[in-house]
Amino acid sequence: MRVFNFAAGPATLPLAVLEQARDEMTDWQGSGMSVMEVSHRSKAFVAVAQDAENDLRDLMRIPSNYKVLFLQGGATGQFTAIPLNVTTADSTTAYLNTGQWSKKAIVEAKRHCKVEVIADEVASNYSTVPAFESLRVPANAAYLHYTPNETIGGVEFPYIPASGNVPVVADFSSSILSRPIDVSKFGLIYAGAQKNIGPSGLCVVIVRDDLIGRARPGTPPIWDYEAMAKEGSMLNTPPTFGIYMAGLIFKWLKGQGGIEAIGETNRRKATLLYDAIDQSGYYKNPVARDCRSWMNVPFTIPRPELEKTFVAEASNAGLTNLEGHRSVGGMRASIYNAMPIAGVEALVAFMRDFQRRHG
Amino acid sequence: MRVFNFAAGPATLPLAVLEQARDEMTDWQGSGMSVMEVSHRSKAFVAVAQDAENDLRDLMRIPSNYKVLFLQGGATGQFTAIPLNVTTADSTTAYLNTGQWSKKAIVEAKRHCKVEVIADEVASNYSTVPAFESLRVPANAAYLHYTPNETIGGVEFPYIPASGNVPVVADFSSSILSRPIDVSKFGLIYAGAQKNIGPSGLCVVIVRDDLIGRARPGTPPIWDYEAMAKEGSMLNTPPTFGIYMAGLIFKWLKGQGGIEAIGETNRRKATLLYDAIDQSGYYKNPVARDCRSWMNVPFTIPRPELEKTFVAEASNAGLTNLEGHRSVGGMRASIYNAMPIAGVEALVAFMRDFQRRHG
Repeated sequence: MRVFNFAAGPATLPLAVLEQARDEMTDWQGSGMSVMEVSHRSKAFVAVAQDAENDLRDLMRIPSNYKVLFLQGGATGQFTAIPLNVTTADSTTAYLNTGQWSKKAIVEAKRHCKVEVIADEVASNYSTVPAFESLRVPANAAYLHYTPNETIGGVEFPYIPASGNVPVVADFSSSILSRPIDVSKFGLIYAGAQKNIGPSGLCVVIVRDDLIGRARPGTPPIWDYEAMAKEGSMLNTPPTFGIYMAGLIFKWLKGQGGIEAIGETNRRKATLLYDAIDQSGYYKNPVARDCRSWMNVPFTIPRPELEKTFVAEASNAGLTNLEGHRSVGGMRASIYNAMPIAGVEALVAFMRDFQRRHG
Repeated sequence: MRVFNFAAGPATLPLAVLEQARDEMTDWQGSGMSVMEVSHRSKAFVAVAQDAENDLRDLMRIPSNYKVLFLQGGATGQFTAIPLNVTTADSTTAYLNTGQWSKKAIVEAKRHCKVEVIADEVASNYSTVPAFESLRVPANAAYLHYTPNETIGGVEFPYIPASGNVPVVADFSSSILSRPIDVSKFGLIYAGAQKNIGPSGLCVVIVRDDLIGRARPGTPPIWDYEAMAKEGSMLNTPPTFGIYMAGLIFKWLKGQGGIEAIGETNRRKATLLYDAIDQSGYYKNPVARDCRSWMNVPFTIPRPELEKTFVAEASNAGLTNLEGHRSVGGMRASIYNAMPIAGVEALVAFMRDFQRRHG
């Protein structure tokens, strides 16, 4: 029996997609082979990769002066690859620090170029984002990097930073495809697949042409945007099953009505859960109201010693993986695209029941 | 209906493994989730990764002073990672050039350190390996790199090079687990998964402790052997489905009797195919007899204009992906562990029939 899986990533996937992958597992498209067993250079698989790219371009309305790359190494790999591709050792870059993923990106960038952290939300314990008007991006910065959604803190930017001519680079790992965004406002968007795109081991990079072709000597070829763009992301063997699954999920998203429709569903799911928290007088979400994540909702209860009970009872009720990140404790419900409203409704009902019994 | 798939990689996988993956696709181990949907840090998944490592250690008899890492980026990623981890820019390394994969490793290494190519089989058009006694490995080399099996040329070393105290580093992508090897003779073994291990997107690195902890500043953390060993290959989100599939394949291999047994089967498969080629008076394999690959068997026919007919007719007969690599033409049968003897028998029967009709 399927459960409602609130894991932060790897995360729940649409059942219809899993069922299709299951049904095609030993004989894909009548080939007598699994999609995992066919050459990445075969016509059939090249069409899979091209379809996936085209569907992602449609969904996000990606302008033609951006390349879409399917890479390995996750967003963590891109923490390294981005400075190697678009800076020199003398370059200055600007970073916003809004939580643990921002921090990791900053630590890695500092090994490769100069980094100015132009906003740091430490004072609020990373429960806020900087005010739009407060950002002063150095005009000589090679780029401005930020994390639109912090998976661990549950903080999401309600705006895209304005940075003049400085390209905006964004780690969209946990919020890509969750609501409409204007891609043309970004120089580079990247995302590990394992939240809203597919299985782990695939990283999507959407990069504007002017940021391509500037890789430093020594940049690993598999992360050199120019080399990979030239080879259609197949400079080496790509993670074929991950690309196939991503393609199925993009088609599923289109079937849901695209990003506008899924964004509206996500808004409803988030509203339902935050309202239940705020109106309970029992559960608490620590994040400022203007920047609460639609994807990751951390919450606490008055007696932390009951957290384990909450997680265990929820799991028994078919609501799994609600424990908070090991670094912050509490609970967290990740409600990505593939989590249906019914899952959030079931969680809210369970939370009311738990409060009645333990509150 | 399943076919016999002779693709060079991604390649055929054991049907029993695909069936298990299929049956568990929407509800893995009674969890109500796919294995793709569970956290890499969950107890259940950590056990999957640990089992996979333990089974690989058993199968290959990996000594305890070696770490086993599950990485992203493929063997091509390791072409970069190896010099970054075990050399300085002033280091000298020694490489053997026996074909296209050796060459790629050499090109990349030259971007990071000094490279001496101490043997190059260009004179035989890469149809030979250097004589064991001919190798002179510089005593100051940081390592000796070679490619035990060249997937494209179909050349396989019948020996492990002797290099004194210089660590031997080997790209075993297309022959790992195909027959017993003495791991203790190597400093580092690496292999892309997509031939004998599982789906693409996973790379296995087996590295001796003395080669760990020397990474250059700026080495990508996800390829820093020390950092990854410390984190049990989970410094970032690993390719969980690939690790799960690799684990199933390791268990399948154990069920086949381990590497000794599969090696004997592979010897029989290769003998059957090479004998059929040599005795035909029609088909030709260009590789010297002492170094013919057990995994990749290229062959030609007298009239190259019939190659397309051969490949198409074979495909119609359920024998797929027999076209040679785009860089060399001809035909190639890759007969990895998951290819049963019945597949090679069917191929040999088809070849006889084709010769009768077209020879």
